[in-house]
Amino acid sequence: MDNGFELGAWVQKLYMLSTSDHASVVSMNLFVALLCGCIVIGHLLEGYRWMNESITALIIGLCTGVVILLMSRGKSSHLLVFSEDLFFIYLLPPIIFNAGFQVKKKQFFRNFITIMLFGAFGTLISCAVISTGVMLFFKNLEIGYLDISDYLAIGAIFAATDSVCTLQVLSQDETPLLYSLVFGEGVVNDATSVVLFNAIQSSDLTTIDPTIALHFIGSFLYLFLASTLLGVLTGLLSAFIIKKLYFGRHSTDREVALMILMAYLSYILAELFYLSGILTVFFCGIVMSHYTWHNVTESSRITTKHAFATLSFVAETFIFLYVGMDALDIEKWRFVSDSPGTSVAVSSTLLCLVLLGRAAFVFPLSFLTNLTKKSQNEHITFGQQVIIWWAGLMRGAVSMALAYNKFTTSGHTKLRPHAIMITSTITVVLFSTMVTNPVF
Amino acid sequence: MDNGFELGAWVQKLYMLSTSDHASVVSMNLFVALLCGCIVIGHLLEGYRWMNESITALIIGLCTGVVILLMSRGKSSHLLVFSEDLFFIYLLPPIIFNAGFQVKKKQFFRNFITIMLFGAFGTLISCAVISTGVMLFFKNLEIGYLDISDYLAIGAIFAATDSVCTLQVLSQDETPLLYSLVFGEGVVNDATSVVLFNAIQSSDLTTIDPTIALHFIGSFLYLFLASTLLGVLTGLLSAFIIKKLYFGRHSTDREVALMILMAYLSYILAELFYLSGILTVFFCGIVMSHYTWHNVTESSRITTKHAFATLSFVAETFIFLYVGMDALDIEKWRFVSDSPGTSVAVSSTLLCLVLLGRAAFVFPLSFLTNLTKKSQNEHITFGQQVIIWWAGLMRGAVSMALAYNKFTTSGHTKLRPHAIMITSTITVVLFSTMVTNPVF
Repeated sequence: MDNGFELGAWVQKLYMLSTSDHASVVSMNLFVALLCGCIVIGHLLEGYRWMNESITALIIGLCTGVVILLMSRGKSSHLLVFSEDLFFIYLLPPIIFNAGFQVKKKQFFRNFITIMLFGAFGTLISCAVISTGVMLFFKNLEIGYLDISDYLAIGAIFAATDSVCTLQVLSQDETPLLYSLVFGEGVVNDATSVVLFNAIQSSDLTTIDPTIALHFIGSFLYLFLASTLLGVLTGLLSAFIIKKLYFGRHSTDREVALMILMAYLSYILAELFYLSGILTVFFCGIVMSHYTWHNVTESSRITTKHAFATLSFVAETFIFLYVGMDALDIEKWRFVSDSPGTSVAVSSTLLCLVLLGRAAFVFPLSFLTNLTKKSQNEHITFGQQVIIWWAGLMRGAVSMALAYNKFTTSGHTKLRPHAIMITSTITVVLFSTMVTNPVF
Repeated sequence: MDNGFELGAWVQKLYMLSTSDHASVVSMNLFVALLCGCIVIGHLLEGYRWMNESITALIIGLCTGVVILLMSRGKSSHLLVFSEDLFFIYLLPPIIFNAGFQVKKKQFFRNFITIMLFGAFGTLISCAVISTGVMLFFKNLEIGYLDISDYLAIGAIFAATDSVCTLQVLSQDETPLLYSLVFGEGVVNDATSVVLFNAIQSSDLTTIDPTIALHFIGSFLYLFLASTLLGVLTGLLSAFIIKKLYFGRHSTDREVALMILMAYLSYILAELFYLSGILTVFFCGIVMSHYTWHNVTESSRITTKHAFATLSFVAETFIFLYVGMDALDIEKWRFVSDSPGTSVAVSSTLLCLVLLGRAAFVFPLSFLTNLTKKSQNEHITFGQQVIIWWAGLMRGAVSMALAYNKFTTSGHTKLRPHAIMITSTITVVLFSTMVTNPVF
């Protein structure tokens, strides 16, 4: 990675041959080399408490962005155009599946109701607070025209916490209760945000209709139950096939391949039926680790455990590397450079609203949960509430994907208010990740 | 997979929404479900000597092709358009890497010179025989206009043996000498065919020039040495990094991720420098299994061994499933249906030439090799020569990919002679795989 001269030549080539296949080979090379670099540097920085793989990948991504920006003479900063498909079809499923596969099931199910409260109601409260706040404050900020569905979409975008990052800041072994609460909330939250976002996109919001709320609650319940059921059924089916046919007799590879393929199948089946793939693959992971995993040979057990973790790890690093690189995309900042003040104001307003929106549900809902628990030991203490509040502040890949979906057309931003929203999302993601992480 | 009605509805949808994202979700679902089906059925048929995973996948692919063809009312038979990128960038590297990773190194290097003779010279002889034969016989077959570069390209296409299939018919444990010879030849052959094909594509063949041969030999030697060196260096680098930094101390996942990423990096680096990625990733696999693998923790060792085998297994099944499905693509057979006699004549001519071309180098080169060996024990017996001749007859994914590259434009075939060449390639691939396999 120290061959600066060749890199320059490559990047030049990248622009000369931007239509050819070779250009994509060049970007893939750089990207894979950067991923290797992230792993090595992440390992070297292991000792430092305030660094982790996500921040390393973000910083390496930012640096690469600067280098590419300089070498392409300000034309571009990233190697790949952000594709929602790439994220939702290839990178997210292994991360969420692995989370379900490795989650401590006892803790998770003991706190199931609290998790659901936080994940579903909490996200709604958070979205409502952010949308209202944005409507009140943005009028004074001269951004340009945004309509009511834009405001609600902004609420949904910034109500999506980053379950990927959460996995890295809390330790499952040291603080099992907090981990299961915050992570479980993150998974349900992912689903809620996506549902909310789609509901907002597809509803006609020009007329206010009380049945919309009912309709929304109904579709959320259907989505949650159907997705969970699909995940559980696929997981059980894989356990049944592997136990019944006794694959291990002949081949470890078939067992491993079948587990991976069926896990992935659960995710894309959910997408096929317009359900929440995230919820489905999460519950499929739980069922697979509880049933399927105990029916395979010893070497399959070791292989799947580490292979799933590795896939998830690479996907996470990939996302953060990409977000870092994309943060400098010149096209989006062009609109902002005329009025840096506005951009700073928008980003800080959003950050404050995120803080407020999260506080607005963590403390009241924790209070409600504590009321239902008889034993003092099971209460969520105020200190724990603060950690839950803080740990869920990070905004990550889901927010980015939703913002790109809402405010860009095939990767490009044309309108000024939309460009400002994209750059603000990037700022909030970078800031919240960099600031929230090191505290732990 | 027994929900025939829903399948019908899905396929209908596929055509209604052929431009939308949901269509690709539908095809992915079907494809992943079919892959699972292949694994389960392949396991159930394990006892039968004349069946293996490749044939199962081919037959399932053919059946699915028929179903889709009927349901789409004769419009199409496949779910995905064949993409060379998909094949060369995602499916081939894990297969070849795994072959290098699992190959018995002692046997391979003991027979290195014989393997090189077969793989490099043999392929040239085979290509020359096929090209000459095609030039002589095709004139009488009323196919349409093909020029000299087309004839040479056909020679290169049908000189490419299928190293993937070879892995399944010979057992490394039972016949180590034959396995190493045939498989080693297959890997070198892959590289030679691709080089040959590219040389033919890029040369001006209207004027005959004796320096072309010299130029070709020079570029082949450069390609072979540079590709091998790149693979060895990347493998050694990975071993050095993992040993030096002692990754296993902290995390198995990082070791596994780094091995996978660096193996893949070697392949795309080779593509970047226009080398043979197949050779590079094969030697990278050998070096990694010899050095890197011994420096990682026990669980990383188990994980990588099985994870690589699983990836390779899934990629192979994917290819055969696809080839089976694509075999019925109606667009290509339309031109042929006017003159079924011509098509049969072309395919059988090609099959005979493949048999002849392989005989033309296996027996003479084996004779030459035997001359250099002093001990009678090291000689390749006539029976073994026949097995080598027969086992390398299969034509597979590389032939398909080269034929698509030469005779189609972004997946579609317009000219009659080109369509005939594509259908003949499919026929030869299906026939050679189905007939050659069961003999073992």
